[in-house]
Amino acid sequence: MEPQTPVGEIGERALIRHLRSRIPSGPGVIVGVGDDAAAVETGPLTLVTSDTLVEGIHFRREWSPPRLLGRKALSVNLSDVAAMAGLARYATVSLCLPPDIPLAFVDGLYDGLLERAAETGVSLVGGNLSASEDRVVVDMTVLGQGDHLVRRTGGLAGDLVVVTGTLGAAAAGLRALEKGARLDGDGDLSNRGAWPADAADGLVPCLRAQLDPSPPLAFGRALAEQDIVHAAMDLSDGLSGDLLSLCEESELSAWIEPEWLPVDPCAAALEKETGGDAFSLALHGGEDYQMLMAVPPERVDALREVAGVWSVTLSVVGQFAPGAPGLSLRFGEAMRKLRPKSHDHFAGRERRREPAPEA
Amino acid sequence: MEPQTPVGEIGERALIRHLRSRIPSGPGVIVGVGDDAAAVETGPLTLVTSDTLVEGIHFRREWSPPRLLGRKALSVNLSDVAAMAGLARYATVSLCLPPDIPLAFVDGLYDGLLERAAETGVSLVGGNLSASEDRVVVDMTVLGQGDHLVRRTGGLAGDLVVVTGTLGAAAAGLRALEKGARLDGDGDLSNRGAWPADAADGLVPCLRAQLDPSPPLAFGRALAEQDIVHAAMDLSDGLSGDLLSLCEESELSAWIEPEWLPVDPCAAALEKETGGDAFSLALHGGEDYQMLMAVPPERVDALREVAGVWSVTLSVVGQFAPGAPGLSLRFGEAMRKLRPKSHDHFAGRERRREPAPEA
Repeated sequence: MEPQTPVGEIGERALIRHLRSRIPSGPGVIVGVGDDAAAVETGPLTLVTSDTLVEGIHFRREWSPPRLLGRKALSVNLSDVAAMAGLARYATVSLCLPPDIPLAFVDGLYDGLLERAAETGVSLVGGNLSASEDRVVVDMTVLGQGDHLVRRTGGLAGDLVVVTGTLGAAAAGLRALEKGARLDGDGDLSNRGAWPADAADGLVPCLRAQLDPSPPLAFGRALAEQDIVHAAMDLSDGLSGDLLSLCEESELSAWIEPEWLPVDPCAAALEKETGGDAFSLALHGGEDYQMLMAVPPERVDALREVAGVWSVTLSVVGQFAPGAPGLSLRFGEAMRKLRPKSHDHFAGRERRREPAPEA
Repeated sequence: MEPQTPVGEIGERALIRHLRSRIPSGPGVIVGVGDDAAAVETGPLTLVTSDTLVEGIHFRREWSPPRLLGRKALSVNLSDVAAMAGLARYATVSLCLPPDIPLAFVDGLYDGLLERAAETGVSLVGGNLSASEDRVVVDMTVLGQGDHLVRRTGGLAGDLVVVTGTLGAAAAGLRALEKGARLDGDGDLSNRGAWPADAADGLVPCLRAQLDPSPPLAFGRALAEQDIVHAAMDLSDGLSGDLLSLCEESELSAWIEPEWLPVDPCAAALEKETGGDAFSLALHGGEDYQMLMAVPPERVDALREVAGVWSVTLSVVGQFAPGAPGLSLRFGEAMRKLRPKSHDHFAGRERRREPAPEA
């Protein structure tokens, strides 16, 4: 089969056979791809999560090399499992493919999927191949094992709001893509678009954060061993929107100290080029796939030790407080109400988000 | 929220909140919808399968009332678990929705999903909501428990080819939809299309077989208790295509005796109206979601007893034989080569299927 052959010419069954031949077996896989269902060894408690990347909504084919798309499709699900302090073990992938898409695209996507799976000890155990009229859809489900879960519901008033890593790089990467910057399938800069040559250093980390995120998986999993964190979730929709979600689940309010935000330095450099402000990206921009946690003040040092082991940086950015779910920005002694701006996929634009009506 | 409000106006988070409020908790669900991942109690062996319904490929919105679509999206996955002799326990659903689709569609789909889940003891534990440009995609993943699995690989030469139920009704139902016949959301005939009044009796069972299939779930699961069946799979792509798959997995050939095929009587009546032949639908038509099994001749009576308990009919339709994967039709002493005709979703048409090249 030639790489440029459209999948419609190859046919569904031949393509399934081809992809199946690429998937290695893995530990705990009793029945892998090729039967009615896969059968895998699990512990008494199984974590399950699904996340979908839809062409035109979550990615563009001309922006995402297929290998990076495959890596990201898995990573966004791994992030969910890690945010529960779980260990991802198995994955299934449902692909919807337009008939004119070339084999090279599907193989590239599988290159990334299988590579990322190997890096993280995950076995691909099945999935589904469907036609679609004109859009690629990648829907993945990941199964994991868990024991001491960290949920969204356990936050207490007085807990500190803590995030891993830096914020805003993925959103800055999205802006860079809009301005013509591109990565190739190896994750190297292939086009700097409208950016001057001296911006290239900041471009690559931001583009990678957007196209090939690296959630702090080992750190998340390590939280199962510790009794440090009251509540956690991953940052997929942006700090403001996700913090409001954590407030809603834990029935708390929260404030953020703007000066404490770990604004990504590459995002800051890129935004400066265009006269923009990376603070807003760090506060509202999505897809950082860092972790957001509610941590009692006396346990922050212990958490820093765990983070150090896994080379993860931590930032205290605010505090949870009693009261109806809602957010504030703290300026010295003054509090100003903060309205989360989350991306609304249906509306296709940013939508100011009102707190959920009380139940 | 008014039923006709487009989901794009409601917004992603409000819709998630609404759907979440509709999902009951269930046995074994430690963490249900609303966290980063669900956590469910499982046995040491977990079955996992995914199947996708894509608008324009697997269904049309004007043909499938949303309630029946929700039922079918779950049923096709339940069928896969039952064909492994497993028990379905949990499900996740990933929905891609165009922004202009009304809330009533999503609620109808959830009506069917939740109703079918309750009928079969399955708990909906999570999923994902995405926008799409203009097509609905329903991708479901079902987790089940299994112990004594029945796989596709265990067939032996001399085993009889056995199917449950009747064949061809779902394909006849698809033809009826093409000719304007319709069911309403309750599964009752709302339009008989081009069909005469006296065909209505045959129409409804065929339309239901297509839009709301009923796989023999309890019978499939019961096979875990027995050591009767060497290999099994569900009939989703049509007897000829699926039997060739079973041959490939078990490294056998097989013949079918045309007169033994349990042609669905309603399909036969409908085809007769239009001068067609239901035999071809029973042989090649897909989506019957019956079971196809390899059964040693001396165990067929024992299998009939199990089938009787679950009110399932069985038909011996042929036999497996040594040799390279391939199919024949037997006419008395003569064998004629049978080429499977399976629907190829990518090609958008029936494609004659060649056996897989030998490994």
